[in-house]
Amino acid sequence: MSDLRIAVVGAGLMGADHIIRIQNRINGATVTAVVEPDEGRATSALANAPQAAWFPNIEAAIDAKAMDAVLIATPGQFHEPVLLPALAAGLPILCEKPLTPDAVSSLKIVEAEIATGKQLIQVGFMRRFDAGYESLRELIASKKQGELLGLHCAHRNPTVPESYHNDMLIFDSVVHEIDVVRFLTDSPIASVEVKHLKRNTMNHEELNDPVLVLLTTENQVLADVEMNVSVQFGYQVKTEAVFEKGIAEIGRTSGMTTWFDSQISVAEHVSFKTRFAAAYDTQIQRWVNATLKGTIDGPSAWDGYLAAAAVEAGLEALHTGAKVEVKYAPKPSFYN
Amino acid sequence: MSDLRIAVVGAGLMGADHIIRIQNRINGATVTAVVEPDEGRATSALANAPQAAWFPNIEAAIDAKAMDAVLIATPGQFHEPVLLPALAAGLPILCEKPLTPDAVSSLKIVEAEIATGKQLIQVGFMRRFDAGYESLRELIASKKQGELLGLHCAHRNPTVPESYHNDMLIFDSVVHEIDVVRFLTDSPIASVEVKHLKRNTMNHEELNDPVLVLLTTENQVLADVEMNVSVQFGYQVKTEAVFEKGIAEIGRTSGMTTWFDSQISVAEHVSFKTRFAAAYDTQIQRWVNATLKGTIDGPSAWDGYLAAAAVEAGLEALHTGAKVEVKYAPKPSFYN
Amino acid sequence: MSDLRIAVVGAGLMGADHIIRIQNRINGATVTAVVEPDEGRATSALANAPQAAWFPNIEAAIDAKAMDAVLIATPGQFHEPVLLPALAAGLPILCEKPLTPDAVSSLKIVEAEIATGKQLIQVGFMRRFDAGYESLRELIASKKQGELLGLHCAHRNPTVPESYHNDMLIFDSVVHEIDVVRFLTDSPIASVEVKHLKRNTMNHEELNDPVLVLLTTENQVLADVEMNVSVQFGYQVKTEAVFEKGIAEIGRTSGMTTWFDSQISVAEHVSFKTRFAAAYDTQIQRWVNATLKGTIDGPSAWDGYLAAAAVEAGLEALHTGAKVEVKYAPKPSFYN
Amino acid sequence: MSDLRIAVVGAGLMGADHIIRIQNRINGATVTAVVEPDEGRATSALANAPQAAWFPNIEAAIDAKAMDAVLIATPGQFHEPVLLPALAAGLPILCEKPLTPDAVSSLKIVEAEIATGKQLIQVGFMRRFDAGYESLRELIASKKQGELLGLHCAHRNPTVPESYHNDMLIFDSVVHEIDVVRFLTDSPIASVEVKHLKRNTMNHEELNDPVLVLLTTENQVLADVEMNVSVQFGYQVKTEAVFEKGIAEIGRTSGMTTWFDSQISVAEHVSFKTRFAAAYDTQIQRWVNATLKGTIDGPSAWDGYLAAAAVEAGLEALHTGAKVEVKYAPKPSFYN
Repeated sequence: MSDLRIAVVGAGLMGADHIIRIQNRINGATVTAVVEPDEGRATSALANAPQAAWFPNIEAAIDAKAMDAVLIATPGQFHEPVLLPALAAGLPILCEKPLTPDAVSSLKIVEAEIATGKQLIQVGFMRRFDAGYESLRELIASKKQGELLGLHCAHRNPTVPESYHNDMLIFDSVVHEIDVVRFLTDSPIASVEVKHLKRNTMNHEELNDPVLVLLTTENQVLADVEMNVSVQFGYQVKTEAVFEKGIAEIGRTSGMTTWFDSQISVAEHVSFKTRFAAAYDTQIQRWVNATLKGTIDGPSAWDGYLAAAAVEAGLEALHTGAKVEVKYAPKPSFYN
Repeated sequence: MSDLRIAVVGAGLMGADHIIRIQNRINGATVTAVVEPDEGRATSALANAPQAAWFPNIEAAIDAKAMDAVLIATPGQFHEPVLLPALAAGLPILCEKPLTPDAVSSLKIVEAEIATGKQLIQVGFMRRFDAGYESLRELIASKKQGELLGLHCAHRNPTVPESYHNDMLIFDSVVHEIDVVRFLTDSPIASVEVKHLKRNTMNHEELNDPVLVLLTTENQVLADVEMNVSVQFGYQVKTEAVFEKGIAEIGRTSGMTTWFDSQISVAEHVSFKTRFAAAYDTQIQRWVNATLKGTIDGPSAWDGYLAAAAVEAGLEALHTGAKVEVKYAPKPSFYN
Repeated sequence: MSDLRIAVVGAGLMGADHIIRIQNRINGATVTAVVEPDEGRATSALANAPQAAWFPNIEAAIDAKAMDAVLIATPGQFHEPVLLPALAAGLPILCEKPLTPDAVSSLKIVEAEIATGKQLIQVGFMRRFDAGYESLRELIASKKQGELLGLHCAHRNPTVPESYHNDMLIFDSVVHEIDVVRFLTDSPIASVEVKHLKRNTMNHEELNDPVLVLLTTENQVLADVEMNVSVQFGYQVKTEAVFEKGIAEIGRTSGMTTWFDSQISVAEHVSFKTRFAAAYDTQIQRWVNATLKGTIDGPSAWDGYLAAAAVEAGLEALHTGAKVEVKYAPKPSFYN
Repeated sequence: MSDLRIAVVGAGLMGADHIIRIQNRINGATVTAVVEPDEGRATSALANAPQAAWFPNIEAAIDAKAMDAVLIATPGQFHEPVLLPALAAGLPILCEKPLTPDAVSSLKIVEAEIATGKQLIQVGFMRRFDAGYESLRELIASKKQGELLGLHCAHRNPTVPESYHNDMLIFDSVVHEIDVVRFLTDSPIASVEVKHLKRNTMNHEELNDPVLVLLTTENQVLADVEMNVSVQFGYQVKTEAVFEKGIAEIGRTSGMTTWFDSQISVAEHVSFKTRFAAAYDTQIQRWVNATLKGTIDGPSAWDGYLAAAAVEAGLEALHTGAKVEVKYAPKPSFYN
């Protein structure tokens, strides 16, 4: 079978990383197009994919029939103008999270996908491909430890750039937990509430961080999420699950242990790139394999919409301090 | 120096345990009196303290000058009628938690102690003597990892008897976290709020467990407490502390590790008795040493009152679902 | 660049696994030939590589120009008759360990490779590609903890088939430690000695297992290896390194931890296939990448010879109970 | 019951520590005599035991009837001249390890004890009272994981003083493993062999450290001991046990874990004093309790003799490089 020809849209940090991944570690795919308005960025990226052509916009790439599938790696606010023409062209898409920044635009994408008559979109919630989350989901589904009652999540970044502002705590960061809590519980988020820990004074003044986000699912699981973007020491994502008959925990780092200088130590991750390296590889490989068979193998556009709706509620909760119920459009039968 | 002569009041589970401790592992103290209305219980307890005399009530023991100090190990609702005559007799007292079941009666005890002119009461919040909590308190005080921002606490029992009811989640169990959060942060609890995880169906119907209790301190630390009395697998008390520059965790059990039957395993505690065995010993030894010098060395009656006031707010939070502010009487200069 | 066309020689357990790997997870390579005398095995294997042709022997595949490179996955005693014609045809080769079963035949392969004028052979000591061993090697090289003084290795299998006999403890199992101790210390094995632990009675009677193998390197590091093929509980490979200023350990498994049924537990590996899954993938990917550039990227034929010579000394040590010095031919300048 | 009146012989590091222990943490005992030729040391020690009298030698203390029992905390070469008069006086004795420095003198003590007609001597192998070793011994005895086959022991000190010389590796340090291997296996040491790791250059030149000591027991268990007195980072004693059906490990430190400065860290012990603090307390408490009942509760003089004989073999093994069989006198029926 010939390789899947992929156009990577966006040659920033994320896009450049995906290009290297596809070129070096993914079976059955080749980057044949880089879509990027900035010529300098495009040139850098093409150094890692010499066989690919450069296009300043998605329409040009579509016109040139330069690809069989599209990987969108631009920031969320630029997804819609890529998604719509790609859908119109009938191209399979892996779209980095979020699908779009709000529920209304996400629903518009959902409708556009339904209009094509085929599930073309997979959303890049890569945690679903992490071995830890997979093990936990299996344990929950097995009921071996009884029903799942609650989740304690921590999502910690060492620092964030000056451009990172309060709302991004919800739409850029907690959005991962919003998706993965639903994935683990098989139930949508019903309400969101936000509490503040004492403010970390190491941040720029506009940021009121860390927060404790309380998510309840429709099946009554309570998840609390410590969202913390200034913890300095490293990058950490972990979850402790409370069952009727016990506890389970994922996300503790291992690796070489040293006894040195009066301490027993293990190196901790400093970036999502190493923490989720295997998850990203698995996500892309499984998406390529599924796409070659004409399907998707991961979160759908509908999952993207559900996350967008919960993010909206989360932003309201952050702004008002109140507990906010999430409102969802009825689920189209297309996604059953 | 002669041994401190101790009257143990209450020869139930807790009292019997303290008698064995003092007789076998504590330096400088002897049980000389067992105060217990139930003759059967008293007789059993005296088997472990043959030199002690039996008294049906505290007044009889006081009249007989049977002791230099009193250790109260009855349930909380029976503390006041022992505390008042013991204070009147000028006797040093170690009173198991809670000081009394409510803020009004605790304040009455505080006033009675002030009237004696001397701090005679130490309250049995034994977690303050646990090596883990001590290490964490030192780390917080050192500011090595910056300011403390939040605490994630878990307090898990395997099961509870039929007699354990919802309110006990707060006044019998979370009361430990209420004291220890204040101990760690050096700041009183300012508000309490209670959320429910999905209910554990393995419980008797009247119990709606587990809960997530949110405590904020006056210095703005947010502590969330998973209070869970039906987790089946064992007994576990642990705390994760979030600092400006990192994280710290106490309470993970160690012990012999086995690789057997496809699992890497460590035995977990099944009771507070083993989990806090060393803390109980240390508490009693330090109390005995301090008492022989005429002082206390641990939480005071005022600490007992503060906990009682926060417990009252916690019960209101449990009953109403609202966030409840804690109200405290002004601190008497006696306790500065 | 076109994919590297690979002939997999041997479609047993190991070969079948490599075919699935190359077809599904390796970038830049395709299985185009399966060389296997047994038609049934070949047919099974071809189900996972439908584009590949079947050849009953290596010569037929060479004649058909069916591949650019050869991956040999047959048992060690069958390597030589594949290696020699593949070398004669100038084909790059990844040869599963051991290169050959003894030093004389390994040296013959080395000479045949030298005669081609180019390093064509890489030997499949996959542990060199394990993240743990890589971290440890870097730590040793960095001298951060001072000089390396010794290694404590454990290599444990749950069980072995009836066909596994005593000598295989050395040539099939300890051969991995023989290579990796050299890799870590950058120094050949100078002597081998074998001690017996108490015999595991769960084994078939011919097997005297476990053993403690003592390896010394030319630079005076002492490595003790517990070689244990009947430990029942799972598969475990770990190493503890003793430095002048501290200790380091690799190979402790992590993964989801559960608190359940009075135990804190983590699932342990049961097979080298999962324990070294990432190492196998990395080894093959890096070999494919190097081969496309005309080089190797891993242990050479000379490394294979050194291991074969140390294995011979190990067998003598096992049979005699004595400490046996390893004798090596002088190193050809070709390998500098 | 009145307190046991103890004479502590030797007011050096170890003796001073025992005085503080008995005065502050041990139930049922009082230090009534300090036997120490050096008046300065004696005076320092008496500051922690103001009720005790000072005696320059054991005979003076015996004449003064100053004690009910003797705790010997001098270096091993000074034990015999204390043991003999104390035995003659019929006094119960806790003698710090070793009983005496060699097998001949130890046998002399055994004979002197037999002559008294009563087991008066307990030897201070405190590891037998460590919770880890106790758990492991129970697991071995239970046969839950099948027969014990081997032990991997590590005994690591950060540094040693200039006065510490090579032979002390065996008679001062490995003597602990010699006793505890026998305790765990319930079988005497049958042979000793000593191998050298690469020498740690941070030591004074006379010390050739670390070593790997191979102990075999009469019931065929092989124990390897890494004896390492210069590991710089901390103090560590641990044991990994190999069973027919699995593995068990004791001695990994726990305590507060921090995530700080890119590392996950736990503080390690730096001295036997903290590592075995609880074991020392338990040992003394149980010895006091047993002594008050007229018995011993721990290793006997015969255990002390067996260790002395194995130490002699170990010294010969260290000096010659050979495997040395241990020779024991027949066991007197007195110790059955």
